[in-house]
Amino acid sequence: MIKVGIVGVGTVGQSVVDILQKNADIISARAGVDIIPTIGAVRSLDKKRAVDIKLTDNPNEVINSDVDIVVELMGGVEEPYKVVTQALKNGKSVVTANKALLAYHRYELQELAGNLPLFYEASVAGGIPIIGALRNGLSANHIESIVGILNGTCNYMLTKMIQEGVNYNEVLKEAQELGYAEADPTFDVGGFDAAHKLLILASIAYGIDAKPEDILIEGIDNISQTDVEFAKEFGYEIKLLGIAKKKDKGVELRVHPTMVKDNHPIAKVDGVMNAVSVVGDRVGQTMFYGPGAGGDATASAVVADIIEIARGNRGPMLGYKRGLEGEKLKLLNAKDIVTKYYIKLKVEDKSGVLAKVTNVFSENGISISSILQKPSKIQDRVRLLLTTHECKERDFISVVTKLKTLDCVEENLGFIRIEE
Amino acid sequence: MIKVGIVGVGTVGQSVVDILQKNADIISARAGVDIIPTIGAVRSLDKKRAVDIKLTDNPNEVINSDVDIVVELMGGVEEPYKVVTQALKNGKSVVTANKALLAYHRYELQELAGNLPLFYEASVAGGIPIIGALRNGLSANHIESIVGILNGTCNYMLTKMIQEGVNYNEVLKEAQELGYAEADPTFDVGGFDAAHKLLILASIAYGIDAKPEDILIEGIDNISQTDVEFAKEFGYEIKLLGIAKKKDKGVELRVHPTMVKDNHPIAKVDGVMNAVSVVGDRVGQTMFYGPGAGGDATASAVVADIIEIARGNRGPMLGYKRGLEGEKLKLLNAKDIVTKYYIKLKVEDKSGVLAKVTNVFSENGISISSILQKPSKIQDRVRLLLTTHECKERDFISVVTKLKTLDCVEENLGFIRIEE
Repeated sequence: MIKVGIVGVGTVGQSVVDILQKNADIISARAGVDIIPTIGAVRSLDKKRAVDIKLTDNPNEVINSDVDIVVELMGGVEEPYKVVTQALKNGKSVVTANKALLAYHRYELQELAGNLPLFYEASVAGGIPIIGALRNGLSANHIESIVGILNGTCNYMLTKMIQEGVNYNEVLKEAQELGYAEADPTFDVGGFDAAHKLLILASIAYGIDAKPEDILIEGIDNISQTDVEFAKEFGYEIKLLGIAKKKDKGVELRVHPTMVKDNHPIAKVDGVMNAVSVVGDRVGQTMFYGPGAGGDATASAVVADIIEIARGNRGPMLGYKRGLEGEKLKLLNAKDIVTKYYIKLKVEDKSGVLAKVTNVFSENGISISSILQKPSKIQDRVRLLLTTHECKERDFISVVTKLKTLDCVEENLGFIRIEE
Repeated sequence: MIKVGIVGVGTVGQSVVDILQKNADIISARAGVDIIPTIGAVRSLDKKRAVDIKLTDNPNEVINSDVDIVVELMGGVEEPYKVVTQALKNGKSVVTANKALLAYHRYELQELAGNLPLFYEASVAGGIPIIGALRNGLSANHIESIVGILNGTCNYMLTKMIQEGVNYNEVLKEAQELGYAEADPTFDVGGFDAAHKLLILASIAYGIDAKPEDILIEGIDNISQTDVEFAKEFGYEIKLLGIAKKKDKGVELRVHPTMVKDNHPIAKVDGVMNAVSVVGDRVGQTMFYGPGAGGDATASAVVADIIEIARGNRGPMLGYKRGLEGEKLKLLNAKDIVTKYYIKLKVEDKSGVLAKVTNVFSENGISISSILQKPSKIQDRVRLLLTTHECKERDFISVVTKLKTLDCVEENLGFIRIEE
């Protein structure tokens, strides 16, 4: 018999207990041993929980108990870090769904865990077994790219904006009413949640030890119906993507709204669903699709990890048993990203303006791929929507800066990166 | 160091050697040990191979050598069965990509393997790590259904027929010229290849020990442009699907061309790509997409298994360490399948015919969902295309038999099952 203790018995924690109890028939058959949840720690014992295990308000009681596996579902970073490190020191195996904890502490935790399993399938893309796919199923490949819809809230909002023409503020309000977005939605719509998940995937694929502060993160709060209409006209969908890309000299890691060609499989992933497309040098293109959040879907991944531990499988935490020196991959500076761009400008409606604007691009060695001019609500102004061929972020930003100095450019209304 | 021997050094075998050598940097880091291909057995030593390992024409030389892992890539059933059983008896771990071998012998091999790993990720859907997903990532779930595009040849042909209006015979010829279909295409277009793969997935999900002869298998050779046009008109795609579905009293296993609603993620999978959609009672709907064939993609899965073995992971071969008595799931008789149907009839073009035809359905308790009447090339004849609501296969077949006895029905041109 294997005993499981849970620190943080909220929605996911209650689902974990429920699955372990209600699906015990298949779980014990698949694991080869009975797996019993015995104790859970909660912040307040006053709140009623739908679980019939012993509850305590002291996490130490769980990690000092006779459980074999500690499941960490607390949220936050520093408090769970203490709980997980102490659990490992006590010789417990650990399962966590905590992407923020891993975004900051995965390498220390890997070292501390040593031969003890520390699994985290639920931390990225909820119920989709993408950690297993990357760590095991695609392990023969040099990973060329990972492109993921890693935040269901943003994908729900963008899908609504595109399919129903709803504005950002309206759709945010609706997402909050439905419980898809928090009262303070920054963590989701600002791209930080997706960035945490991307960093975890990038560790497995490339062994890169970066923190959220080190990478380019942009949210979806600047996306407007002008962008949506442009995207439709030119055959793109707009998605918040986490992107990891291997280049000659290193790896690009970035999270931003992206115009993606509507024939890419990831462009068809709508609503709260998540999906991760992985290209390997040998396997080619793969994609993994499913629910990225929700108590049961996330708990499904947590329990899968528990079963793996019960089976005696170890799998190196971050996918490597030896260092990744062979690849010598470094995180590329965000300014060195190479991609295509869409930019929207508000300019004066008179002759010669287009020439002045496009000159700035050509002077900086950036060639323009498409141009669309639309009437503006304001008299004597038009919207100028341009896309570029591939160029360096550094050069593009310098164009943006120079455009601001032109008299004829009244406002830079923002830009969106493009992936084909 | 771990030594690997390969029995059958064809396209996939050569890719396995190539990946182990060219991707040795990441493979040794991920496995924690160097993995070296040392010997391969081929049918004829005269044929030139692009590998620099020792070659023999005697498989026994491989399985009696000092290799730790034997990779079986021979094709066929009985010869590989002898090789794999002898390798296991010699204490070798085994990796196979051979779906036919597993469709017939997976339970004997599981018993024989005991604690030795016998892995087979490459046997289903090539480079897609669907075995790992089902055996590990989704192991907390009762699996409600598996729906897979498991044969790239059929999917390529159907995609062409639908997107370009090409007839079956033309597209088959083209697939043969491109090397997607064999000179004798029966194994692919007849659904047998997909059935082998479905049986392997059904073992992991349900522990069902069925053989190809036990399940419903229908190929795509009866699909015509009439069906394609009907499907388009009613919002369906036509796919050859392997379907496993848990019902109250057991599990349906079947392979047949299927009309599937065009908003289902699997409907959007085109060309030679494979995809498997798995619904779990807790995770909900997931889908796994990627290349189902090709030397490198298949070898990617073979090498992933080799790495798993090198890491010391065992994972029960068919997903269960104990019997599946808890679920008590049996294979349902094909006659007890419950689904919707599309049927096309050639009937006389006169009044009263529609009433006579629909009467046969209602007398057998089957209600009709939609009707489309199309002119036929032959005078005084029309095509009558009908779809039904859900009914038992047994009752539907009895309707088909009765329709044949009607004077007004000149010909039953076939039927296709529908999945929503």
